[in-house]
Amino acid sequence: MSDYRRLKVGITQGDINGIGYEVIAGALEDDRILELCTPVVYGSAKIAAYYRKITDSANIPYVQIQGAAEATGQQYYIVNVADEELRVEPGVPSKAAGEAAWKALEKAVADLKAGELDVLVTAPIDKHSIQNESFSFPGHTEYLQTSLGEPGDRAMMIMCSPLGLRVALVTGHIALEKAVEMVQTQLVKEKIHDFDISLKRDFGIDRPRIAVLSLNPHAGEEGLMGDEETSQIIPAIEECFAEGIQCFGPYPSDGLFGSGAFTRFDGILAMYHDQGLTPFKTIAMDSGVNFTAGLPFIRTSPDHGTAYDIAGKGEASAESMRQAIYTAIDISRNRRNFDKARKNPLRKQYFEKNKSDNVVLDLNKTEDHHDLPMN
Amino acid sequence: MSDYRRLKVGITQGDINGIGYEVIAGALEDDRILELCTPVVYGSAKIAAYYRKITDSANIPYVQIQGAAEATGQQYYIVNVADEELRVEPGVPSKAAGEAAWKALEKAVADLKAGELDVLVTAPIDKHSIQNESFSFPGHTEYLQTSLGEPGDRAMMIMCSPLGLRVALVTGHIALEKAVEMVQTQLVKEKIHDFDISLKRDFGIDRPRIAVLSLNPHAGEEGLMGDEETSQIIPAIEECFAEGIQCFGPYPSDGLFGSGAFTRFDGILAMYHDQGLTPFKTIAMDSGVNFTAGLPFIRTSPDHGTAYDIAGKGEASAESMRQAIYTAIDISRNRRNFDKARKNPLRKQYFEKNKSDNVVLDLNKTEDHHDLPMN
Repeated sequence: MSDYRRLKVGITQGDINGIGYEVIAGALEDDRILELCTPVVYGSAKIAAYYRKITDSANIPYVQIQGAAEATGQQYYIVNVADEELRVEPGVPSKAAGEAAWKALEKAVADLKAGELDVLVTAPIDKHSIQNESFSFPGHTEYLQTSLGEPGDRAMMIMCSPLGLRVALVTGHIALEKAVEMVQTQLVKEKIHDFDISLKRDFGIDRPRIAVLSLNPHAGEEGLMGDEETSQIIPAIEECFAEGIQCFGPYPSDGLFGSGAFTRFDGILAMYHDQGLTPFKTIAMDSGVNFTAGLPFIRTSPDHGTAYDIAGKGEASAESMRQAIYTAIDISRNRRNFDKARKNPLRKQYFEKNKSDNVVLDLNKTEDHHDLPMN
Repeated sequence: MSDYRRLKVGITQGDINGIGYEVIAGALEDDRILELCTPVVYGSAKIAAYYRKITDSANIPYVQIQGAAEATGQQYYIVNVADEELRVEPGVPSKAAGEAAWKALEKAVADLKAGELDVLVTAPIDKHSIQNESFSFPGHTEYLQTSLGEPGDRAMMIMCSPLGLRVALVTGHIALEKAVEMVQTQLVKEKIHDFDISLKRDFGIDRPRIAVLSLNPHAGEEGLMGDEETSQIIPAIEECFAEGIQCFGPYPSDGLFGSGAFTRFDGILAMYHDQGLTPFKTIAMDSGVNFTAGLPFIRTSPDHGTAYDIAGKGEASAESMRQAIYTAIDISRNRRNFDKARKNPLRKQYFEKNKSDNVVLDLNKTEDHHDLPMN
């Protein structure tokens, strides 16, 4: 694993006919980024060169390697995963491009699991052309839950912006009809919990305040327009609140975002995809980042898609990709600090009344699992 | 009916314990508004005076009258509809306040139907406390459809901002579950038609471009997450387009608003309440106006609610109420111009081949229903 100061960041090429290479080049252009991290791109040096030529973008001096284990210097690295003969057609979805996107993702995930990468940043894929025997998911989030998660892990999509807006979803890439059915107390509770933990551990917020959105217009107006607030969402909020989570609501999304009240919260929990992502993207414009929380590994991505309509034209903004890299690094550090701080809690140095396990603390005794000098 | 230049604008007090009186006073404060219109407030001079005192707002010199018919000068008028003994408690919903809101609305609608008002602007009501035998609706829009509409009229809520953003809804104040069921080709077609007509007649746009939003995330991704796009929405768009309406989509709401592409359209048709209103309010902030299209009478309102939390504190922004008044006036003029321009189409002055009804135009002949001098 790389040293604390400079993390190894795996970056997948995404769909080679989308704006992936353009935004990667834009994000890596300023070489001061090498002071912060070691970027390892999974794709093809040839395609990178092709995009540099047609879009007149920066020349990133990639060192070609076989895997992240070889990325040991303060340089840009690229792992070739694509066929030499692969044809690039900016703006055109193709099965071959889908296959190349898959190969990059597969190799990057393998390096991540092997501990050769600290974090993963994924460029956008085409959700149709990437489908194959190994990848049959609606998107990255669902695939990573399966490939990177342990049993019991729950992946959660959190959209975050450098301005501090963080939006998580109770339901994700499913039909709205199904999303409505899925909004039930148990799931809402799980999501509030997961969001709370991520805000603490990944974003370094001590006592995060979470706003929970309503499902129905005007939060159902006490049953006038829907009762999921009363029957499902409010019980979830109340139970979590009783457990010490600072969660509030349910708030109608138009009111919370329109009034600007969303700025008073550390996280907004939306009930379904468009409810959360529409105001998020409206506000965060092209600096939004998609973070997959709840897994043992850290993955972020820009919040835009393949953008076939502007691919190869040099028009794409690299801001979201740049923020995705920074966010992944920030989260990795926050997580490390959080875990370190909680690894060796000081044992009780006082006696509690009426407790049978009271022992006098022996300050000379050390514990086996200490791996940090405590003084 | 008042003269062309200065319209009579009825303004209902809304809920007396909300921010109604504060925003009305704020909007009417600058007396140059009297050059544009004659405001007739439906409420209580006593309550107006009370709010002036506690919020230290402008003194509007109201002339007290019995109904809009008496509002003949260039002055501010108020029609007393509330009990003398009515108690005001800012921030507290009450049955008495609901009754007062209802009385103001009832009287204003009667004056509007009698032709004594040109347009109606409504301050926000509390949807619970106003419910009674005569008013059992989820909101103003539904009530006005019944009280002002002719059989066959279809009221439609259009949110508009001074910046040119206009958002209409296929479904309104109903549970999301029901909204999903209601998104069917016939209804979407009707709404595209109604929106198109309103953009032309009420907003004076010759060939409006309408963006139709999708119901499911990512517009369903070709069936991966929901099929209402393919089965219901696309057929509606195609049929309307074939009839000459400039409608496009379906677009995912997060993409359309996040990319800024919404600015390329004259109107955005959302499938359900929160989908349209959340980005609208996020963008239009406190200058948004709610317009009830599709009825023979014109009604607008500010896009905020009673805002009990800040009522009586002098903190409410009057911008939305001011825009509601301006928008109602603009729409009234656009409608008049539109109708006038189409009242007496010039008859054909050419011969079409193979048509049996070709007649030589007699330019000396006048037609009975001309009420405008044509030269």
